[in-house]
Amino acid sequence: MSTAPQGAETASSGASRHDRRRTRTRQALIDAAREFLATRGNLDISIQEITDAADVGFGSFYNHFPTKDDLLQAAIEDALEEHADMLDRHTAHFQDAATVFAASLRVTIRLADSHPQIAGILSRTGMRYLNSDRGLAPRALRDITRAVTDGQFDATTPPLALAITGGSLLGLIHLRLEHPELWTPDTPERFTEQLLVGFGMPRGLARATARKPLPDLTTGPISGP
Amino acid sequence: MSTAPQGAETASSGASRHDRRRTRTRQALIDAAREFLATRGNLDISIQEITDAADVGFGSFYNHFPTKDDLLQAAIEDALEEHADMLDRHTAHFQDAATVFAASLRVTIRLADSHPQIAGILSRTGMRYLNSDRGLAPRALRDITRAVTDGQFDATTPPLALAITGGSLLGLIHLRLEHPELWTPDTPERFTEQLLVGFGMPRGLARATARKPLPDLTTGPISGP
Repeated sequence: MSTAPQGAETASSGASRHDRRRTRTRQALIDAAREFLATRGNLDISIQEITDAADVGFGSFYNHFPTKDDLLQAAIEDALEEHADMLDRHTAHFQDAATVFAASLRVTIRLADSHPQIAGILSRTGMRYLNSDRGLAPRALRDITRAVTDGQFDATTPPLALAITGGSLLGLIHLRLEHPELWTPDTPERFTEQLLVGFGMPRGLARATARKPLPDLTTGPISGP
Repeated sequence: MSTAPQGAETASSGASRHDRRRTRTRQALIDAAREFLATRGNLDISIQEITDAADVGFGSFYNHFPTKDDLLQAAIEDALEEHADMLDRHTAHFQDAATVFAASLRVTIRLADSHPQIAGILSRTGMRYLNSDRGLAPRALRDITRAVTDGQFDATTPPLALAITGGSLLGLIHLRLEHPELWTPDTPERFTEQLLVGFGMPRGLARATARKPLPDLTTGPISGP
């Protein structure tokens, strides 16, 4: 997920090794916390369990994070950043706001298959991140606002539309994780179409907008590395 | 919330008093837990804090609940039952499924004003109750299924529609509690209209269905006691 800090190569070899080890330890803690968040939520994780899973000493935890909550917060932000990177890479080639919005929803829904850990974290902790300045929320708010300005969506309060978008997405991801037997391959597109219609798009246009080709999310974007 | 058990009057006076006290203590614990759930979620409540708030002895907790989680579960079910009673009382006089569904949504959204404690509990713990057999979920599933059968909604998978409904409702309640400045008096009706349109209802009919008169939820149903 993370790499050695810029400029480490030019530092003295000792400091550089120290920095790299420090970065590795921090990321190991974050990775372990992400896995706990995805599978158990943040209800009952102990620092000891996290350091055991990360294979680092209990005491070194406090070299990186003042409290468990600081680590959990960093882990959620790490997952949201990874999600944001995916959204940006996979929607950059679309022109209009409604199509970018629709593609972002579909990429997010498909996380349950392409990146189940991130989907689990969103499902278990997501409601608090509906108004986050990271991940999907700021991007969806940008796209909804533009789609209203451009006349693609009816006039609406964008934060209201964002709350509906985010909440229903979380409900859908929850359904996907808890009741996979109710899922069909086109559920993401039917959901997206329904949301676009709710925002005022004509049914036929919504159906087409929700079905534009998307890349295979497990390998990379349609064009470019 | 709760009354003495049926038949207590005919029991011996001592047993009756004991039963009543036992019921009162149990309900005091549930009421205290509900308040904690609404304001803090269930992250970090101790049994000591709950018994202090309920004004009962620490030891008597275990006469009623084996663990803290059992109490929290009972408290959530108590809130969901109260919500269910409101839904049944305030929607019984409507005939068609889509109108019952719409009224249920609006009653639920207005909880933030009429019953903020229940709204807080839903907002903080709600995602896990999207498929609950209590509260809104089973009623909304019933109404969606009927509305599809009656041709009011497009053919859809009712559990998918329920996940969208429940998730977006939670997102909306979250917005109401965290960003009241974005709220207008008709936000519940605009939200409901949007959801109905998403489920395939024509815009004009959805607007009318989402705006049928509702009782003042703080006083009681339109007709009845």
